[in-house]
Amino acid sequence: MIIILKDGAQEKQIDELVKWLQGFDIKTNLVNGVQQRIIGLIGDTTKVDMESVQAKEIVEKVKRVQEPYKNANRRFHPDDSVIEVSGRKIGGGTLNVIAGPCSVETEEQIITTAIAVKEAGATMLRGGAFKPRTSPYAFQGLGYDGIKLLIEARKITGLPIVTEIMDLSHIDLFADVDVIQVDERNMQNFTLLKELGRSDKPILLKRGLSSTLEELLMSAEYIMAGGNQKVVFCERGIRTFEPKTRNTLDLSAVPLLKYHSHLPVVIDPSHATGIAALIEPMSLGAVAVGADALEIEVHNDPKNAWSDGAQSLTPAQFAEVMKKIKAQAEFSGRPIDEGK
Amino acid sequence: MIIILKDGAQEKQIDELVKWLQGFDIKTNLVNGVQQRIIGLIGDTTKVDMESVQAKEIVEKVKRVQEPYKNANRRFHPDDSVIEVSGRKIGGGTLNVIAGPCSVETEEQIITTAIAVKEAGATMLRGGAFKPRTSPYAFQGLGYDGIKLLIEARKITGLPIVTEIMDLSHIDLFADVDVIQVDERNMQNFTLLKELGRSDKPILLKRGLSSTLEELLMSAEYIMAGGNQKVVFCERGIRTFEPKTRNTLDLSAVPLLKYHSHLPVVIDPSHATGIAALIEPMSLGAVAVGADALEIEVHNDPKNAWSDGAQSLTPAQFAEVMKKIKAQAEFSGRPIDEGK
Amino acid sequence: MIIILKDGAQEKQIDELVKWLQGFDIKTNLVNGVQQRIIGLIGDTTKVDMESVQAKEIVEKVKRVQEPYKNANRRFHPDDSVIEVSGRKIGGGTLNVIAGPCSVETEEQIITTAIAVKEAGATMLRGGAFKPRTSPYAFQGLGYDGIKLLIEARKITGLPIVTEIMDLSHIDLFADVDVIQVDERNMQNFTLLKELGRSDKPILLKRGLSSTLEELLMSAEYIMAGGNQKVVFCERGIRTFEPKTRNTLDLSAVPLLKYHSHLPVVIDPSHATGIAALIEPMSLGAVAVGADALEIEVHNDPKNAWSDGAQSLTPAQFAEVMKKIKAQAEFSGRPIDEGK
Amino acid sequence: MIIILKDGAQEKQIDELVKWLQGFDIKTNLVNGVQQRIIGLIGDTTKVDMESVQAKEIVEKVKRVQEPYKNANRRFHPDDSVIEVSGRKIGGGTLNVIAGPCSVETEEQIITTAIAVKEAGATMLRGGAFKPRTSPYAFQGLGYDGIKLLIEARKITGLPIVTEIMDLSHIDLFADVDVIQVDERNMQNFTLLKELGRSDKPILLKRGLSSTLEELLMSAEYIMAGGNQKVVFCERGIRTFEPKTRNTLDLSAVPLLKYHSHLPVVIDPSHATGIAALIEPMSLGAVAVGADALEIEVHNDPKNAWSDGAQSLTPAQFAEVMKKIKAQAEFSGRPIDEGK
Repeated sequence: MIIILKDGAQEKQIDELVKWLQGFDIKTNLVNGVQQRIIGLIGDTTKVDMESVQAKEIVEKVKRVQEPYKNANRRFHPDDSVIEVSGRKIGGGTLNVIAGPCSVETEEQIITTAIAVKEAGATMLRGGAFKPRTSPYAFQGLGYDGIKLLIEARKITGLPIVTEIMDLSHIDLFADVDVIQVDERNMQNFTLLKELGRSDKPILLKRGLSSTLEELLMSAEYIMAGGNQKVVFCERGIRTFEPKTRNTLDLSAVPLLKYHSHLPVVIDPSHATGIAALIEPMSLGAVAVGADALEIEVHNDPKNAWSDGAQSLTPAQFAEVMKKIKAQAEFSGRPIDEGK
Repeated sequence: MIIILKDGAQEKQIDELVKWLQGFDIKTNLVNGVQQRIIGLIGDTTKVDMESVQAKEIVEKVKRVQEPYKNANRRFHPDDSVIEVSGRKIGGGTLNVIAGPCSVETEEQIITTAIAVKEAGATMLRGGAFKPRTSPYAFQGLGYDGIKLLIEARKITGLPIVTEIMDLSHIDLFADVDVIQVDERNMQNFTLLKELGRSDKPILLKRGLSSTLEELLMSAEYIMAGGNQKVVFCERGIRTFEPKTRNTLDLSAVPLLKYHSHLPVVIDPSHATGIAALIEPMSLGAVAVGADALEIEVHNDPKNAWSDGAQSLTPAQFAEVMKKIKAQAEFSGRPIDEGK
Repeated sequence: MIIILKDGAQEKQIDELVKWLQGFDIKTNLVNGVQQRIIGLIGDTTKVDMESVQAKEIVEKVKRVQEPYKNANRRFHPDDSVIEVSGRKIGGGTLNVIAGPCSVETEEQIITTAIAVKEAGATMLRGGAFKPRTSPYAFQGLGYDGIKLLIEARKITGLPIVTEIMDLSHIDLFADVDVIQVDERNMQNFTLLKELGRSDKPILLKRGLSSTLEELLMSAEYIMAGGNQKVVFCERGIRTFEPKTRNTLDLSAVPLLKYHSHLPVVIDPSHATGIAALIEPMSLGAVAVGADALEIEVHNDPKNAWSDGAQSLTPAQFAEVMKKIKAQAEFSGRPIDEGK
Repeated sequence: MIIILKDGAQEKQIDELVKWLQGFDIKTNLVNGVQQRIIGLIGDTTKVDMESVQAKEIVEKVKRVQEPYKNANRRFHPDDSVIEVSGRKIGGGTLNVIAGPCSVETEEQIITTAIAVKEAGATMLRGGAFKPRTSPYAFQGLGYDGIKLLIEARKITGLPIVTEIMDLSHIDLFADVDVIQVDERNMQNFTLLKELGRSDKPILLKRGLSSTLEELLMSAEYIMAGGNQKVVFCERGIRTFEPKTRNTLDLSAVPLLKYHSHLPVVIDPSHATGIAALIEPMSLGAVAVGADALEIEVHNDPKNAWSDGAQSLTPAQFAEVMKKIKAQAEFSGRPIDEGK
């Protein structure tokens, strides 16, 4: 951390500030320039609140040099983390494909879809039971019944199940789920993140619509600081000015997150684009830039889906796309994860 | 709602779509143009999910004409709503000023600040007990102890208290609070919003950092659909590319929200700008554009504040700013709310 | 400027870097921390290209401390600049109101409008002769004929005229114009800015749709570095995610620009909002936050305007709004500029 | 185009509006609903200005159904356009790689770099002669001397040259250039675009930092409406809230532009990311999503580059990246363009 002092800062005030900083077990280095005086902080500054420093009367600006996250930081964990999910490994040099409908709707729908995506080569099953919807008048999900249907689909197909939590009060209902997904709207629901830090389940953490990657890393840090190291990032599109797509898929998030962190990265082209025809090219691009997994919406009957039909693939379309994904995955040296 | 059909749409498919739409108790009007065929929907389309329509094979585009919110809509409630808060009235032709620290820190801090802001003319007291912080290593608030200190401060000053909820599991702890604040990060925490819809307390609903006004209106609709009509909007800055301020205060939100809704609007210049020196001009601007209330951070000792010190006013600075706010409020015809 | 070095930086490489920096007549201060080595630069760093520094092998990050602009910087010109415009003074403690149509269309239109806005209290006349339009099929402006009509309107009303330049090849056509306006799309047309730096006319420089204030300040610096110190900033709305308005008016730009620069600031609520009904509240807000001038679109017949009709006021509406603006201007201590 | 009328619209006013619309040789269809009256326009509406319609008193909203561009529209030109550039073909089922330094600096630099990139497999040479720089104090390019050096480099290597125009007054200096590049800052310099419409050279049109794809398409339309059909799009990153990269590369622009237009698309990962280490993954991603060409910055000595060094590859790095690009290009069925 570097602190730039205001022009008229008094020696006494600087001494006070330095003493306060040393209370955090940090070394300080005062640089006396002609026009500017600067204090450089050396040591672990994660606990020094930038806002508190900024509020001091003699401080002009504060700039962070070290990243404010530790558990998620590759600097302290040089090797890639591999997250085990009931026999599959996210981040272990293979590609996982999580497929399934936006919402679990009926037993027939989820079972049919699960069998179809498995046949096409998907390695995990997704499906929303608790659904965050912009309108209170829209379908809100089946709730726990949805989770029960997913478990049934898992029994039949063997695919691990991924589903989203909306509130910490529901956490017991997720006891038999394989991966708990945190929606972009909850990326900074810190109370929920803390609770998930006490869980032992893998957490698929989605980047907020207008969140920076550092904010995403800090949200992972919330979970990891609580003890749960099994975090997987998911980029699902950010809000931009482009109206032709639902959001804009930021594929550069993959190499950037991998540079700054040791955790795996999933790409969700379905929510990012909102357009079924873009799933194939964006999936291939995601594999080419280095994603560890894809999350793709597939519905047995998209035109009658209760939510997100426009971006869902039919099982037949998904099978076609999977052929190309498999080929690209092999070409990129990260073949589809075949399980144990 | 207007549905634009794809070029090759078959009569049979159109019939099916029309029948499906009529199931929502809606009239349809088919326009056969030379290049384009369009279906216009007439009636209450709030329950028709645009995404479901978009997913139909023969649909090129769907455009909404009617707003998807009803309870919050001025069209159905032409008169301004006035929200009563323990003797004060937000939206009743006066200006309320909610002042206090970002976080409740100690008894001395909150009592001293409460007395000072009351003296300067504030009409309500704010203070965070549960604090959403980006870093898990930053001060997280005093929790329920903070609420107890606020209640104490209310006893001494008579000022109604405004404090933020972070999770629905805490709702019982807010039983004796006057206004429950929902933070921008929770604006789309729909599970929480539904719970607040069952409460009888006024809700101060903050606009998300990158939310549109329609999304804010829909979040109000979540609360109101549950029965609680006491919603107050708060604009606290949106995320833009400008790095000089924490966020960008969108003052045009005030007349726009008032055009589309009957609910009152509060402006929070402190979080919006993050700079104490901007509080005065932006507060005066907020009053001039028509805001019903201001929410301003005041701390008895900003340079030692545990959070948000850089944007907090000292009691002395606040007293100066309040003089100008009072004068502008009177000039604008909405004098400070004096209570019963 | 502060340079943070990479972990393995060699002494020899650091020496080379320090020597290169000293070539810019700058002092350097090397801070050797336990984890991090930092070089602080003292002196005039405006000529040191941050990108060149960043490209050095041993450099981890570069952070600027000093602003990269000098002529526009309030640090070196503590007093407000007052820009004289044919007898009016922008920035001299009064409020100027620049009114008129988006485009000059016909003699009748511009003369009628000019007389009407003068009567209502406007202090300058605006009107576009060269029009930047998104579509090549839309009306592109009358060109030089438009400027001639503006000059005629000035003869009749005495109002100084403000009109926009689109390309430096047209500059001779602006010889008899009072203020040359640079559109937001041309804010970074550096070839044009350099040319305007050689002019002696006041330049009204509009902030780009997604430009930061520092980029705006740097564009002013381009003009001023060429010798022309008569620059006036104009905030006309920035692009955000809010679709209800054309753009989002950033009123905090007024106090921020005035903090960082000595140049005056104009607010254009017409282009910012695109909605005639928002002109009044946003104009009052602009005056309250400290704007030196307003630029407002007025058309004698908005519903038949060739461009921007939806946001134009009729002369009668403008006269009503002007009454309120005058009152607010007096209240704020910056009454309407009455000329010499 | 669909026009939604205000509630109280009078028959007489509607008749007037309909007559005015028919003046554009357009058929109208009036839909009388219970709550809403709508006019649907059938025919070529590109010449109807949405703003003029919006300004009519009885109009609530206007929505465009047809795209406002024709020449660039795939609807009217179903086949891919292939742009010939001195023996290379952009968009003809192969991949072109345009490589070279940000700025032409010296004869030695450009010749050395040109030979190196050719050897590594580049198919065209880029280099800036006129440089748009944010600061007036930064290196502004060699101007025409830079173009002369590029021509020399072409003589030696045979690579067609791509360089940027900043103002229409320079157009004669580009007579011997193979591709004229229009920078993102000039994407809406309509005067320049019109001039380029009269040229017969291929134009590489870069998307503005915060431009939508429709705005980019409209800028292409400006050039094409003037007669020059040889337009190539370039996505070079958009401005987002992510500070870790210079901009955010929007790879979904490739399939979207190809869906809406028949023109080829180039990806510039260098300017988009600003980080040399991201060039390889983002180039591979670009090829996988379907880009017709890449534009990559290569400098013989990046750490001493006069601009953009941090994002430039050395010739050796470029050679390594090219091996992977070639392999991905072949895998994707669009091998490197080998020329005639």
